[in-house]
Amino acid sequence: MKSWRISSFGIDNLEVFDSPIPKAGPGQVVVRVKAVSLNYRDLRMVTGLYDPRLAMPRIPCSDGSGEIVEVGEAVSDVKPGDRVAGIFMQRWLDGPPSAAKQLAALGGDVDGMLAEFVLLDASGVVGIPPQLSYEEAATLPCAGVTAWNAVVTKGSIKPGDTVVIQGTGGVSIFALQFAKLLGARVLGTSSSDEKLVRAKMLGLDAGVNYKTQADWADWIRRQTNGEGADLVVEVGGSGTFAQSLKALRIGGMVAQIGVLSQSSEPLQIAPILHKQVQVHGIYVGSKAHFLAMNRAIEQNGLKPVVDSVFEFEDARSAFHAIEHASHVGKIVIKVGS
Amino acid sequence: MKSWRISSFGIDNLEVFDSPIPKAGPGQVVVRVKAVSLNYRDLRMVTGLYDPRLAMPRIPCSDGSGEIVEVGEAVSDVKPGDRVAGIFMQRWLDGPPSAAKQLAALGGDVDGMLAEFVLLDASGVVGIPPQLSYEEAATLPCAGVTAWNAVVTKGSIKPGDTVVIQGTGGVSIFALQFAKLLGARVLGTSSSDEKLVRAKMLGLDAGVNYKTQADWADWIRRQTNGEGADLVVEVGGSGTFAQSLKALRIGGMVAQIGVLSQSSEPLQIAPILHKQVQVHGIYVGSKAHFLAMNRAIEQNGLKPVVDSVFEFEDARSAFHAIEHASHVGKIVIKVGS
Amino acid sequence: MKSWRISSFGIDNLEVFDSPIPKAGPGQVVVRVKAVSLNYRDLRMVTGLYDPRLAMPRIPCSDGSGEIVEVGEAVSDVKPGDRVAGIFMQRWLDGPPSAAKQLAALGGDVDGMLAEFVLLDASGVVGIPPQLSYEEAATLPCAGVTAWNAVVTKGSIKPGDTVVIQGTGGVSIFALQFAKLLGARVLGTSSSDEKLVRAKMLGLDAGVNYKTQADWADWIRRQTNGEGADLVVEVGGSGTFAQSLKALRIGGMVAQIGVLSQSSEPLQIAPILHKQVQVHGIYVGSKAHFLAMNRAIEQNGLKPVVDSVFEFEDARSAFHAIEHASHVGKIVIKVGS
Amino acid sequence: MKSWRISSFGIDNLEVFDSPIPKAGPGQVVVRVKAVSLNYRDLRMVTGLYDPRLAMPRIPCSDGSGEIVEVGEAVSDVKPGDRVAGIFMQRWLDGPPSAAKQLAALGGDVDGMLAEFVLLDASGVVGIPPQLSYEEAATLPCAGVTAWNAVVTKGSIKPGDTVVIQGTGGVSIFALQFAKLLGARVLGTSSSDEKLVRAKMLGLDAGVNYKTQADWADWIRRQTNGEGADLVVEVGGSGTFAQSLKALRIGGMVAQIGVLSQSSEPLQIAPILHKQVQVHGIYVGSKAHFLAMNRAIEQNGLKPVVDSVFEFEDARSAFHAIEHASHVGKIVIKVGS
Repeated sequence: MKSWRISSFGIDNLEVFDSPIPKAGPGQVVVRVKAVSLNYRDLRMVTGLYDPRLAMPRIPCSDGSGEIVEVGEAVSDVKPGDRVAGIFMQRWLDGPPSAAKQLAALGGDVDGMLAEFVLLDASGVVGIPPQLSYEEAATLPCAGVTAWNAVVTKGSIKPGDTVVIQGTGGVSIFALQFAKLLGARVLGTSSSDEKLVRAKMLGLDAGVNYKTQADWADWIRRQTNGEGADLVVEVGGSGTFAQSLKALRIGGMVAQIGVLSQSSEPLQIAPILHKQVQVHGIYVGSKAHFLAMNRAIEQNGLKPVVDSVFEFEDARSAFHAIEHASHVGKIVIKVGS
Repeated sequence: MKSWRISSFGIDNLEVFDSPIPKAGPGQVVVRVKAVSLNYRDLRMVTGLYDPRLAMPRIPCSDGSGEIVEVGEAVSDVKPGDRVAGIFMQRWLDGPPSAAKQLAALGGDVDGMLAEFVLLDASGVVGIPPQLSYEEAATLPCAGVTAWNAVVTKGSIKPGDTVVIQGTGGVSIFALQFAKLLGARVLGTSSSDEKLVRAKMLGLDAGVNYKTQADWADWIRRQTNGEGADLVVEVGGSGTFAQSLKALRIGGMVAQIGVLSQSSEPLQIAPILHKQVQVHGIYVGSKAHFLAMNRAIEQNGLKPVVDSVFEFEDARSAFHAIEHASHVGKIVIKVGS
Repeated sequence: MKSWRISSFGIDNLEVFDSPIPKAGPGQVVVRVKAVSLNYRDLRMVTGLYDPRLAMPRIPCSDGSGEIVEVGEAVSDVKPGDRVAGIFMQRWLDGPPSAAKQLAALGGDVDGMLAEFVLLDASGVVGIPPQLSYEEAATLPCAGVTAWNAVVTKGSIKPGDTVVIQGTGGVSIFALQFAKLLGARVLGTSSSDEKLVRAKMLGLDAGVNYKTQADWADWIRRQTNGEGADLVVEVGGSGTFAQSLKALRIGGMVAQIGVLSQSSEPLQIAPILHKQVQVHGIYVGSKAHFLAMNRAIEQNGLKPVVDSVFEFEDARSAFHAIEHASHVGKIVIKVGS
Repeated sequence: MKSWRISSFGIDNLEVFDSPIPKAGPGQVVVRVKAVSLNYRDLRMVTGLYDPRLAMPRIPCSDGSGEIVEVGEAVSDVKPGDRVAGIFMQRWLDGPPSAAKQLAALGGDVDGMLAEFVLLDASGVVGIPPQLSYEEAATLPCAGVTAWNAVVTKGSIKPGDTVVIQGTGGVSIFALQFAKLLGARVLGTSSSDEKLVRAKMLGLDAGVNYKTQADWADWIRRQTNGEGADLVVEVGGSGTFAQSLKALRIGGMVAQIGVLSQSSEPLQIAPILHKQVQVHGIYVGSKAHFLAMNRAIEQNGLKPVVDSVFEFEDARSAFHAIEHASHVGKIVIKVGS
């Protein structure tokens, strides 16, 4: 079977390897991968920015979906033919996070999904919502669960709340969809009027172009009668944190995702303190979060937003596309026939 | 000005009194009432079942809306012309409940809203959502806030959860609307197939007629793959509690409203214990809950469901109508011209 | 090796069986049991009141401690020589409960601890606090974790709160200890002045004999300036629930343990509703709860209260002792030499 | 009556004014002040660092206690002779914070407590625990409530948790006391071995001198088996935030008080994100928090730690003492005879 691997850093250094199809041991499953979707983390992994000491050759990509083709002994929850996705951290099944649970993240500490077949623990997969194609389901494990955790679990958003999203990447668009599902108002920022138009078609209530309005927090405040937003889903681009704090109401929350970049901004104690802000670091979520999200997606017929689909052979192009950052929603790679 | 008063128990003993229009003292407002809506509590108050020692003559009804016509000294939050509703417990403004905050419930401990003018503390009113008529807004203070507290505040319902409502009274229909706003699935019970049809038009996902299916909890379990519901909004009719417990998933919640009747069922410790159920007594809610609900109603353009509107002179007929219990949503009385 | 088994119901029908020492398969451990402690549940299991369809012959008792003597393949968390206790529900490791997690309770669905050796999943044991003897540690899995869950996890007790315990059984005494650890005030009921004296030596702030003061809730209210208690740890003896509701403050909580008996009291909707009470069914707790409790016990040098210790051969006497209910704290059976 | 006022910035520019004793209007009380305690905020207010546009002449100091000597009309909660303290934000009575509730902070937006008599809203005072002297009670409104909010309300600390305090100032010592009341383990940092000895006498479990061990977070990690602490009460000195993040366990919390200084550290997104840290800005707390804290202090006989007491005439010396920062606990000024 074929897999893409990082054997040295750089998109164009990604290589296709050939290896035997894995066999399922006790408690394991083999998944025939059908689709993989890309996150900025995957790009940073490939380029070496995420972990300079990455074990190589490493199969990249945390997010993928497929069909179970073999189950090992002592596996009762799933069976061949099941449509599944892998979970981001293979050992974070339930409850709050811990050091032990955060080990074994796909496409990082262990091999990821950009392969024709993958071997996973049976506990490391979840069934996917029936109305979703494999391409759509491939977007869920990191981007979907992160947004669910930010908006629903940690954010505890309720109808009438105001949520701010930044840009139109995968996490932001999922956050938009979940916040609208909860009856919230969603305001968004972007560098492109055209992307704002597309986001409005997906439910965005109003948007601001931060190229023409650098102080977008001021715009948020005016949109909320001077009160500020309840939640900012902070994806951590350059210089946004100060604006995010300014955009919040007293007692509001920053869900800190930070996929885009490391900030070099100064820490602002005063607004955190005087506005009694909560900053919650969000690092994807557990299998339990994934299952709860899937139930919501199925119940509401929600469709992930797929920006574009690349062929397996064109995986490098997919990475170049996410680097170029002109997408709305998710970039997907088809695997297999 | 005219007001209806309980001077002896019984619907047909309600009497119209004439008295001077009240004057606003410091911190007070006078509201010209435009509409009042009825709750079972109001019926029980009028018939003497709620409080046999009620101080008389008492103006009944907790729920009403109108226009501020006078403000006293030291009132800055509201002004003449403002469209407002009274809050159920005049002293429960914020935070958790307490004995002191539960005093001064309109139409019980103190005079209620079924009058042409009422005198309230300025802190005892909230502005009403602009898209609502006075008739619609009159339904909010008890029925709306109770359902909000049950589904949103205590229930913490999230997309994909399953909520059970009982019947089609005011609280149940609001609970249906708020649960759908949150992306939940809503299952309902009724004694009437026709009412179930009307409830489905309001968003109910599926319903069961408990006349033909007495073990409706079994139906709920089958609708949820044997797992049971996340929340039952228990309005406390005869013999429902045991079914509600049976209908719940492990770890599920009963929001105990209990407006309909006092139960004479035996207490069932075993299922509460083994299913790790939470039973939350819900007694309306605070001004803060009311404001949060209004924000959600305004943001989502939600419309309360008004079953029928009676004239002020026909107030007794309105009480007979709620006694007859053939309504879906709320029964309202117009006040003034 | 020897084990006591239920082969027909009744304390005096308990029988000693002889069988081979079990072998650890992959992911399993063998524990040489050192001590077992008894709960009312175990008594009810033996007498047939808990589950008339119990699979027999069944080794009873959920609570025991011992030393690991063998580990199977793929076990890394624990090793031979480790001092451990079993967890009550072998599959409830973390997060909220579910039907699947509630399966496999020791001494019920599966064999329990009253044996010289037991075979458990490696994930089904926890290390015990170093300052505890095996007899002390044997009291933790059901009684300790239940009280922790009631007082700490669900009760969220904080310094200055008032907690009510009922009687001096194992759960009640643990609840007393944990509540005092949290800086709370603890009030207790008992049928015996002498037991109240012993409870005061363990930290009880004040106690009432319900034989001489049947309306003990009234006493609680007087002790709390008429406000009522924050939490009642309700162990479900006859006719206590109505008193528990009366004893609570507005917004207070009943932690419903209910180990003693099934209630035949009528359900009281009115006080649940008007006092906005929460009733939480507590069915022991998860491995995560157990670990958190152990950390607290170790950090604070807390000692479980052992009422009396029986020899393995006298196991029937231990069951008669718990039936007689004259103990304060826990009844323990030594196992092995 | 005499009061100290800021009429131009600088400790030595503080001046004594003479003015008539205030009269209580409707809903107001006059308090004869007995003691005032100092916070860094008060120092920063006096020196002009807190608010360069402070309205002058302003009476400084948020924290004080005294005896009610007059109540106005319509005051029923308190009466002359009551021993009370003022609440920091006069309008934050209950529930979550808001812009409106954060107005009217004593010694900032409105006149403070460093006067022989003060005029306050009746809702703006709380009774003080009976076992406390006025000097001790004067320490509660800002320092006590802030630490309560950090450790109990937001921190949700439970027995066995590990809490880190920084230095030995007022908030840190209260945090130590409350955390010990909750059965937690408390680790502390200081620049002085002698102060660590004094803190240990107050309950500190272990301490580290950050002068000799700059990487104190590494010491915390070693003290916690490499796991890290559950809560750091971050008082915001120079360069501590990065160490605080490093000292935390995965999923841990920073309670950001920040009284000491504004940080110029870079914001560290990566550890917030990957450790799923929560940062909660704590800005004192509400009247409800104050009342809950007082209940805990009374129930547990807890005594605030008073470092030194100055005479009213020596108020400037007291400010110089807090500037010098050699205290453990609180610096207090006696007022009146």
